[in-house]
Amino acid sequence: MLNPVTSAFEDILRGLLPSAAFKDDSAPYLTEPRGRWAGQGIVVAPSSVEEVSAVVRACADARVSIVPYSGGTGLVGGQLLQDGPAPVVLSLERMNRIREVYPSENVLVCDAGVILADVQKAAEDVGRLFPLSLASEGSARIGGLLSTNAGGVNVLRYGNARAQCLGLEVVRPDGSIWHGLTRLRKDNTGYDLRNLMIGAEGTLGIITGAALKLAPRPVGIGAAMMAVPSPQAALELLALAGERIGDGVSAFEIIHRQGFDFLAEVGPKIKQPFAEVPMWCVLIDVGLPAGLQPDAALEELFSSAFEAGLVTDGVIAQSHAQRAAFWHIRESIPEANRRIGPVSSHDISVPLSTVPAFIERGAQALAEVGAFRINCFGHLGDGNLHYNVFPTQGLSRTDFETERPRVKQVVHDLVNEFDGSISAEHGIGRLKVGDLERYSDPAKLAMLRAIKDALDPQGIMNPGAVLRQQG
Amino acid sequence: MLNPVTSAFEDILRGLLPSAAFKDDSAPYLTEPRGRWAGQGIVVAPSSVEEVSAVVRACADARVSIVPYSGGTGLVGGQLLQDGPAPVVLSLERMNRIREVYPSENVLVCDAGVILADVQKAAEDVGRLFPLSLASEGSARIGGLLSTNAGGVNVLRYGNARAQCLGLEVVRPDGSIWHGLTRLRKDNTGYDLRNLMIGAEGTLGIITGAALKLAPRPVGIGAAMMAVPSPQAALELLALAGERIGDGVSAFEIIHRQGFDFLAEVGPKIKQPFAEVPMWCVLIDVGLPAGLQPDAALEELFSSAFEAGLVTDGVIAQSHAQRAAFWHIRESIPEANRRIGPVSSHDISVPLSTVPAFIERGAQALAEVGAFRINCFGHLGDGNLHYNVFPTQGLSRTDFETERPRVKQVVHDLVNEFDGSISAEHGIGRLKVGDLERYSDPAKLAMLRAIKDALDPQGIMNPGAVLRQQG
Repeated sequence: MLNPVTSAFEDILRGLLPSAAFKDDSAPYLTEPRGRWAGQGIVVAPSSVEEVSAVVRACADARVSIVPYSGGTGLVGGQLLQDGPAPVVLSLERMNRIREVYPSENVLVCDAGVILADVQKAAEDVGRLFPLSLASEGSARIGGLLSTNAGGVNVLRYGNARAQCLGLEVVRPDGSIWHGLTRLRKDNTGYDLRNLMIGAEGTLGIITGAALKLAPRPVGIGAAMMAVPSPQAALELLALAGERIGDGVSAFEIIHRQGFDFLAEVGPKIKQPFAEVPMWCVLIDVGLPAGLQPDAALEELFSSAFEAGLVTDGVIAQSHAQRAAFWHIRESIPEANRRIGPVSSHDISVPLSTVPAFIERGAQALAEVGAFRINCFGHLGDGNLHYNVFPTQGLSRTDFETERPRVKQVVHDLVNEFDGSISAEHGIGRLKVGDLERYSDPAKLAMLRAIKDALDPQGIMNPGAVLRQQG
Repeated sequence: MLNPVTSAFEDILRGLLPSAAFKDDSAPYLTEPRGRWAGQGIVVAPSSVEEVSAVVRACADARVSIVPYSGGTGLVGGQLLQDGPAPVVLSLERMNRIREVYPSENVLVCDAGVILADVQKAAEDVGRLFPLSLASEGSARIGGLLSTNAGGVNVLRYGNARAQCLGLEVVRPDGSIWHGLTRLRKDNTGYDLRNLMIGAEGTLGIITGAALKLAPRPVGIGAAMMAVPSPQAALELLALAGERIGDGVSAFEIIHRQGFDFLAEVGPKIKQPFAEVPMWCVLIDVGLPAGLQPDAALEELFSSAFEAGLVTDGVIAQSHAQRAAFWHIRESIPEANRRIGPVSSHDISVPLSTVPAFIERGAQALAEVGAFRINCFGHLGDGNLHYNVFPTQGLSRTDFETERPRVKQVVHDLVNEFDGSISAEHGIGRLKVGDLERYSDPAKLAMLRAIKDALDPQGIMNPGAVLRQQG
């Protein structure tokens, strides 16, 4: 059984940490971006791995649970604990130093509390690229990004957060420190603890530092938006882009007209790239080595694709500003979705070649539940769709409270039928624990549980996230 | 306590498997490439995941241990059990089907017993590349390559075996099957079991199938050998190549003159590329997208490097045959090493920027132990050196039996001082269990042990590999 934080326990923590580690206002840490759940507990912000270790050791001794708190941008409730004994919310915000940069090794070592945009900037300062990029990069912190194995727009080329990490420093649930901050590219000495901690959502330990992989900065950057007649054509265009531009394709996003309609209805304001808004379009981003021209490469791609009937219209960015405007459209869609208010949102993936069939079947299945607007968009290159279901115009999400569970289940059942994932990049948190149980192979669930029990035998680390709390 | 295979237990297995699954001659399975250890036990070769499951379940019931056997090419004794109760040696050789190829998804799904060269060929047949490549690719099988997280020559560009895998099918130590053969690029649903199984050397379960990631085939292929004045210059050349050729650099191998001297002394016969054999040279392999010429790119690289004093001589392959001849040199060095007979061989990595200092310090430290010839070569792009210590001419490895442990410790202590790895790509097997204990962070060791005990509570899976056998 876990114990709640008491004032006596708080006194213990005050003896371990300087007063700067305690927050006057805990409210911001006890809410989340969509305002769906409220957290509880006291907030402490240690400034070193030793302080984190001391806090965790005290919690382990007292069987008080810990909720690691990074940027607070997660969408599945992994960063707050609504029920049960009040936890210590351990914020990483004061562990925000870039520790070392090794440009000749393409490595950057930093505290887990560094904000993603600051890592991107530090890489840029030495002529390198840190390719992880997503909408919340101005507030998301490295520890949370790794703990949730964040995705974003450059996964197609550079992989997800997991692929950007070489080593970790982790405080274990007993307070001991794993010094795993290696800069090595190859190290086959024992089980892969790094990847076990990445994506564990703070349930196996607290990531306090990371050695991150940098990439060369592509020399020529370009982008285009192309209208495609169908999702199948978009897939074929993706394959054609791979053949023609190779590794140079860094992002390949699909957008349905519904996204443009929402932007027109509620904003944010965008500049319309097409004379006539197409039913489907893609945003292609390329980064090429010296000797290749992005504009020329995209023009050639467009010509071949047009000849093959894969595109009907297209705009190639003529400037960095126009490229940014394309990305502004893409990044504004989630905000437009929020303003409309979804009945149900889904972060799903299916095998790449089945995306068109999934989209068709999804629309059919939902039509049987009711009249909805579907905004399906996202990282087509990764088979990752943000598949969001909205009320028809004039109605609001509150009109669909009773339908919501059914909508969710229809979508997730279909994803499961397609051998897909009900959480492609957001993680499980507390929101999807039931879905994980429902759709996972029993052997997988047994291993998840065995690992949790082995590495956190008291169950104090982020209880109830990923796996249901036991006992 | 584990039980040995008895004839009564063999009868049980004969009831579970067809007679084709039993080998008349077990000898080849009980030896290893360097002939250092002898295995024991009976050999069975199931032909399906269900048969593997049945064997494992029977072993679990009888507490008989299992040694998974793939291509048998491992160099650290992970594939045979010399001491203790005789195990079942479970060969994957009859699970050798390519199950499905999805060219449009860049995915290939196969049995774990497929030979690497056959996967490469199947990828080529659909115009794709399976980039994992190493000297033993004609006999190494996918299950073993994944279980040891094999490296090879293309890690610089494509990553190690881990990076080529999307999903796994695994038989757990209780015989249950984890159906994790996903083709998804993104799936954040629970702990990363795939990467935990990859590199676990068969100690947590048996990989029976894999979904592998294919890559587009580069359009223009080229190679060059360049003489460099020092390892530091080689590193700077690597950085320059990254700036000029970007992701297109697929391999960057360093070779010391000692390798050429050994080849001249004992063969295999090679064609000498340089007029005068340099002290250090590198072999650079590039694969470029359409629109870029490999020869031109390598010539430009050479010119800039020559101007900067980073290279003194160079030969750019003028044909596929010449490129193959360069690679023949590189791939013949291990054979020459075997013919000379090392006092001690080391598969190590250090942080990239410290490679030159490591090479210098290594020579100094070994000079204090005795007179040796050092053949240091390998995957410089990954900071991975094959650092092998040989007797001076006229003496043989048997003259150094007493010095061997000290040589080994001097090298590994130095690797440890450099925050390096004592097994960059070969794994731990049984050979390096003591080294793993000696050089690992205690928190890491505690986690390895906890995971092993949680996932294989009876300790029947490849006992004594990676971790010392307990109890």
